[in-house]
Amino acid sequence: MTVNILLYPDFTVLDAFGPAEVLGGVEGLSLRFLSPAGGIVTSGQGARVVTEPLAAMEPGGVLLVPGGMGSRPLAKDEAFLAALREAVGKVEYVLCVCTGSALLARTGALDGLRATSNKRAFDWVRSCGPDVSWQREARWVCDGRFYTSAGVSAGIDMALGFVRDRFGEETAENAARRMEYHWNRDADHDTF
Amino acid sequence: MTVNILLYPDFTVLDAFGPAEVLGGVEGLSLRFLSPAGGIVTSGQGARVVTEPLAAMEPGGVLLVPGGMGSRPLAKDEAFLAALREAVGKVEYVLCVCTGSALLARTGALDGLRATSNKRAFDWVRSCGPDVSWQREARWVCDGRFYTSAGVSAGIDMALGFVRDRFGEETAENAARRMEYHWNRDADHDTF
Repeated sequence: MTVNILLYPDFTVLDAFGPAEVLGGVEGLSLRFLSPAGGIVTSGQGARVVTEPLAAMEPGGVLLVPGGMGSRPLAKDEAFLAALREAVGKVEYVLCVCTGSALLARTGALDGLRATSNKRAFDWVRSCGPDVSWQREARWVCDGRFYTSAGVSAGIDMALGFVRDRFGEETAENAARRMEYHWNRDADHDTF
Repeated sequence: MTVNILLYPDFTVLDAFGPAEVLGGVEGLSLRFLSPAGGIVTSGQGARVVTEPLAAMEPGGVLLVPGGMGSRPLAKDEAFLAALREAVGKVEYVLCVCTGSALLARTGALDGLRATSNKRAFDWVRSCGPDVSWQREARWVCDGRFYTSAGVSAGIDMALGFVRDRFGEETAENAARRMEYHWNRDADHDTF
């Protein structure tokens, strides 16, 4: 199963690479790094990552959408949103970290579903999906094939939750242990 | 102050990008991504990152060395170790995550000092620095200008500890809150 990680200018590194660390270490999962047009994408922290064009994504697998300041202009970019909508339709699961859920909400895919996002950007994210049932108190939310997490580091917890749901408790616990990570196992427990 | 992040083939993404998320968000710190020869470096998870050559690093600031499977061959690579030794001599602080401390130990810089590393690779790391005072039970260790952390996610805690030491408690707490991260604040408390 392929995990397609969708990068864009000014994404936040931990939103992408926290889940990448979790999912890249699970047997049976492999990672691909994509961006709307392909090429080198620069994160908000100045990391430059080589990507393939989103159009090259194969059907099936997982689409992971990180957050970051770059989500603000993209939420108004109709060409990007059309490409994202198409990509969402091609995969089995969609995982959004932090303000990544604002982009997913703008495609309409979350309408009528429960979702969460970063607390600091919550009002803006909510405005991107007025018909979404936004959960302010959640570490992450799974509704159908859509996973959305709270801010930045919550993406690691959500990715481990996805691994638990798909590959079982032991695989998730092993992944957390390999990273010497104190997994926040309870999706509903949120202290932020 | 510049944080120079030294990547190499088969580094582990969270070792580099966890601390990058912390440090890249602190006012007064900026990040540079380097590798022994520069160019595109591929992580153990398949992420391809654009880097500058290590020789281009300017004096001062911080050197951050991640771990990963790629540390194994590099620990026997005398040309790499000579370049690392020179880089260590040029910076103010060195931060090593996970098996990154094995590489630092091989330069001799940790001799007589306290340090830690990933529990799963501890015996191998210890063999890379027989004159280092290795601490098996530690989330991270600071001795002089050298910070070393336990496995993978512990690098985030260590980076926050470095921020606390240099920029104060409030800056570190703000950085953790921005990431919605449950900071393991106590360097000596280790449950792995």
